[in-house]
Amino acid sequence: TFIEKLNQVTENLTSCKGTKKESIYLPSIYEGCETTDAKKAIDETRTYFLKKLKGKAGSTIIFTGSATESNNSVLNAVITRKDKKYIFSAGEHSSIYETAKKYKENGYNIVFVPLNKNGSVNLELLRQALDETVAFVSVIYVSNETGAINPIKDIVKMVKGYNSNIQVHTDGVQALGKVEINLADMGVDYFTISAHKINGPKGIGALYIANPNKFKAFVVGGGQEMNLRSGTENIPGILAFRKAFEQLEVKDYSAYKQALLENIDADNFLVSNDECVSNIISICFKGVRGETIQHMLEDKGCLVGTGSACNSKAGKNRVLEGIVPAEYIDGAIRISFGDDVSIEDCKNLGIEISSAVKQYIERIKRWIM
Amino acid sequence: TFIEKLNQVTENLTSCKGTKKESIYLPSIYEGCETTDAKKAIDETRTYFLKKLKGKAGSTIIFTGSATESNNSVLNAVITRKDKKYIFSAGEHSSIYETAKKYKENGYNIVFVPLNKNGSVNLELLRQALDETVAFVSVIYVSNETGAINPIKDIVKMVKGYNSNIQVHTDGVQALGKVEINLADMGVDYFTISAHKINGPKGIGALYIANPNKFKAFVVGGGQEMNLRSGTENIPGILAFRKAFEQLEVKDYSAYKQALLENIDADNFLVSNDECVSNIISICFKGVRGETIQHMLEDKGCLVGTGSACNSKAGKNRVLEGIVPAEYIDGAIRISFGDDVSIEDCKNLGIEISSAVKQYIERIKRWIM
Repeated sequence: TFIEKLNQVTENLTSCKGTKKESIYLPSIYEGCETTDAKKAIDETRTYFLKKLKGKAGSTIIFTGSATESNNSVLNAVITRKDKKYIFSAGEHSSIYETAKKYKENGYNIVFVPLNKNGSVNLELLRQALDETVAFVSVIYVSNETGAINPIKDIVKMVKGYNSNIQVHTDGVQALGKVEINLADMGVDYFTISAHKINGPKGIGALYIANPNKFKAFVVGGGQEMNLRSGTENIPGILAFRKAFEQLEVKDYSAYKQALLENIDADNFLVSNDECVSNIISICFKGVRGETIQHMLEDKGCLVGTGSACNSKAGKNRVLEGIVPAEYIDGAIRISFGDDVSIEDCKNLGIEISSAVKQYIERIKRWIM
Repeated sequence: TFIEKLNQVTENLTSCKGTKKESIYLPSIYEGCETTDAKKAIDETRTYFLKKLKGKAGSTIIFTGSATESNNSVLNAVITRKDKKYIFSAGEHSSIYETAKKYKENGYNIVFVPLNKNGSVNLELLRQALDETVAFVSVIYVSNETGAINPIKDIVKMVKGYNSNIQVHTDGVQALGKVEINLADMGVDYFTISAHKINGPKGIGALYIANPNKFKAFVVGGGQEMNLRSGTENIPGILAFRKAFEQLEVKDYSAYKQALLENIDADNFLVSNDECVSNIISICFKGVRGETIQHMLEDKGCLVGTGSACNSKAGKNRVLEGIVPAEYIDGAIRISFGDDVSIEDCKNLGIEISSAVKQYIERIKRWIM
């Protein structure tokens, strides 16, 4: 069968220097097959995902071109009335944030709820935003900026306790493989995931839909994916996504984070506290520019991010802006650990960062004097 | 470099029984690389496509999740005002047709222009539909149903001659590799293509945009693809699309079509006349049901289509309905030739089709008497 052929396929997981890598599983032999086989393989993969993520009875998963498309699809389906209120955390990924802003510009009632100091949404302010006009709430599960984990199950309880008709979405891209996921228990209406965050290929995402009958397709045409997402299906991508998912293990990076932080010796503001996933660390240094530190580290073979990694546009970091003191924000650095990182790497990275920060400050001093 | 690594990659082009196949080129080794390398590879691929398709100065190409997404993107960008008229041929692919219908239901002025007997758009009726409110015209280049070639260059001349502000789109999915393409000369504003129609992988499409400054993104977020299409880029898909494009040869299937038709011996209405591309043949038989003939042929190892191949939904064939006489339409069959077809295959297919049609009619006769 098609799936058996896939399983024979060689996997290539090659890593890149530093902590940043682009690794994928891809079926290297994609044997010719009839369309009916392909459709069957997609449906089996759908069932597999629903089982692993514990989707509720009657729910489904559709495959999309990216998590960005999944997120756009949800907003397109739910934002339909100007007399309703749509609530978002201020820490949403740009694919939610920028889309919501577009709706706001077009006269829709869009509300962004401020964040706590670690980047999680402020639950009290979220509660206060609820009123009888609210139709939808979207809160990112794990912040791509700070690693903060939002208590989605509690949020669903609070929101649906207020009004069971309010639909809830969470972007689970950074959560997959980092926290255990049980969608039926969590009670969300929509859940977004992406292959490339779990060593799958780029260009393939998925969207969990609790009540498919309520959903309106974003991409329209031939009626593929049960008429919920048209377009010829990315079969190699879908099957590689499954492959990556099968090999996924929820891993704790606490020891790595600790090894890194213990070796940092410079005035800093640590955004990613203990309530964050341990593989994403947002830390800001006083008196330096994050971008310069990034380039200095790159010369040492260490790849770190600044600002929003998922945003190709240059500009300020809207998530950190609300939560980091002004004197620290220009020195923001974002570190994320890949599968192949070692404790030794983390220690060295801490030392290199500290050294780069000090060197930078020394230079500035000399320049001023 | 990344591109060099891609070129080392083994290609797999495996065929399926019959005339229907699912073949792809995929980079079987996708080596880890830095994001900057990946971005460079995408931009080089973009430049390659623009050069090969002869895009006009200042134009660009964006990569999408499918031709369906490309088509949806164009309509999302251009259909913005209820006081304007938007014209479509009645033979558009479902990703245009269904989307346009949705706009019509929402109160937009959407007009469908009837087709000629071979499935091409009626130019006189298109000319008559032009008035001072028209903002956009979309005509499929090669009909996916009948293979009819629309004279896009002449259409652009007529439309822009009437009013140079009218934007013109053509869906070139079935044209790529079948006719020579020169976009600057053709003068279109938008052009849609897809990888899997030229032996590339599924799940990757592209859209040519003559004036990127006028374009409004459909998928919004991190600002990838020059802020024209957000979402992490499908890098393996994009590179495999290039690979397929590099190996593409415009091929004429006239001899194959002739061998097939010469061996058909049953009362039929041939939709695909000499003004159609030779690799798509739509032919309707009197007194039979296309679906039954399809199943009878499948048992003989011949895969043919009925209705619209790109449409997962069951139902009537809206393109043929307008052009095929009532007594023939239920017996519609669609044949398309792949790379690996032989003259012998085509002769045999003609014989098998004729035999199936006769067998069907004999059965019906016996059942009636």
